[in-house]
Amino acid sequence: MIRLSVYYPTTEGATFDHDYYRDKHVPLAVKTFGLDGAEIDKGVDGPYVAAVHMKFESLDALAAAMSSAADVMADVANYTTITPILQTSEIVD
Amino acid sequence: MIRLSVYYPTTEGATFDHDYYRDKHVPLAVKTFGLDGAEIDKGVDGPYVAAVHMKFESLDALAAAMSSAADVMADVANYTTITPILQTSEIVD
Repeated sequence: MIRLSVYYPTTEGATFDHDYYRDKHVPLAVKTFGLDGAEIDKGVDGPYVAAVHMKFESLDALAAAMSSAADVMADVANYTTITPILQTSEIVD
Repeated sequence: MIRLSVYYPTTEGATFDHDYYRDKHVPLAVKTFGLDGAEIDKGVDGPYVAAVHMKFESLDALAAAMSSAADVMADVANYTTITPILQTSEIVD
């Protein structure tokens, strides 16, 4: 299994709308990518104000999802001015 | 629920023993902290060579676990020269 994590670094002067993220953006991503769900983090302590973790069956499935990600990417401006950081990882058994 | 994520930034010239991490270190952390388990990431693309994600019932439970973390911290030198980054987050329902 592959995990795609998207991190939003805490940034001086930047905004992040956690409600929009939870209620609109992540559901849009889940629907667009055909996922069962996603786990959302709201930062308490550390470098990130928010994050989301999504699981894909394979790198090919992730690549296929990313090819349909334009609407999801375009929605980012609706909740934050932070440039997200993407991390792709293999989930170790 | 609270997530503690520990990230290991890919660092020029640094080492990371993924086998030791999976077989020895994370099991030590899981046992020491009294967790059901933990999810390990092996980096494929992005800023981190590895990460682990652990769930706690509350910030108090996390704080209690951290108070017994000395042996876990001391074990880090056995698998990496990278200084880990800690992120504490609230898992959003």
